[in-house]
Amino acid sequence: MTTIENDLRDAIRTIPDYPKPGIMFRDITTLLGNARAFRRTVDELVQPWAGSKVDKVAGIEARGFILGGAVAHQVSAGFVPIRKKGKLPHTTVRVAYSLEYGIDEMEMHEDAVTKGERVVLVDDLIATGGTAEGAVKLLKQMGADIVAACFIVDLPELGGAEKIRKLGVPVRTLVSFDGH
Amino acid sequence: MTTIENDLRDAIRTIPDYPKPGIMFRDITTLLGNARAFRRTVDELVQPWAGSKVDKVAGIEARGFILGGAVAHQVSAGFVPIRKKGKLPHTTVRVAYSLEYGIDEMEMHEDAVTKGERVVLVDDLIATGGTAEGAVKLLKQMGADIVAACFIVDLPELGGAEKIRKLGVPVRTLVSFDGH
Repeated sequence: MTTIENDLRDAIRTIPDYPKPGIMFRDITTLLGNARAFRRTVDELVQPWAGSKVDKVAGIEARGFILGGAVAHQVSAGFVPIRKKGKLPHTTVRVAYSLEYGIDEMEMHEDAVTKGERVVLVDDLIATGGTAEGAVKLLKQMGADIVAACFIVDLPELGGAEKIRKLGVPVRTLVSFDGH
Repeated sequence: MTTIENDLRDAIRTIPDYPKPGIMFRDITTLLGNARAFRRTVDELVQPWAGSKVDKVAGIEARGFILGGAVAHQVSAGFVPIRKKGKLPHTTVRVAYSLEYGIDEMEMHEDAVTKGERVVLVDDLIATGGTAEGAVKLLKQMGADIVAACFIVDLPELGGAEKIRKLGVPVRTLVSFDGH
């Protein structure tokens, strides 16, 4: 375990039994609110692509918007919002994705990414990977070259990172927690 | 009108009759997706505080998260999410705010800002100012020193910026549009 992983882990608050009994909720708002931890998180996430061009950073609503906005700024890329259905004003592409119970749909503007653009996908946490899988499908549908999917927190027991890697997308996470 | 205002205005897409007839919707996703325009927006917004310390940047859900994340990163501040009620996992402070029709409530974690911290409030657009007014109330309740409220787009005919200035908070906007 690296020093940076320990530092970032310490900056994350765990809330037991939220949103329901038995769940240990990993609350990253304490990390975001810590200027030094937030900056280290962004710097560390983008480190592998520091020298290469990234055209767009796609962030998943809503917490992925915070980190994604900062990452896009850091690598001088444009930002693409991936939103719950019905929130985007222009023509969209849409995909269904799996939630813990049932399915929902997410959307992206159809002109947000053009074929061959190098895109980094960002969200705060990967658990079962249903949301990230939906976002990867949307980006691939638009012909994006997905450089990587990045998350602050990984819950490896839930298999999300592995699911995304099987789609051929490199996954980068900074802090792992055992359990759900 | 400055060159930068024209450049940023050109990067914003207007969608007529959205979400209902008669409304000219100012869609900033095209600006965010344009790497150069996004970077200029962030640089220009923070320019007045380039030399002074900002402790926290507070962003309003959901589009204010994108810009707020980038601004927080640029000024090396922490980020504080202001969310619709029921979305934050820890103990919150809550305030009612006016929407076009009716009222809703927004929340902030009670430990997100401490007394005397210098905070910049960020959202994408200010119209009637109901949302921004609620956010200002929350931040003042926590004893924040609100350095400024920043928005990409101002719709001055709706009076929101004026409303916030009357609360003693400096307002910074980059692009104005006539009408609603």
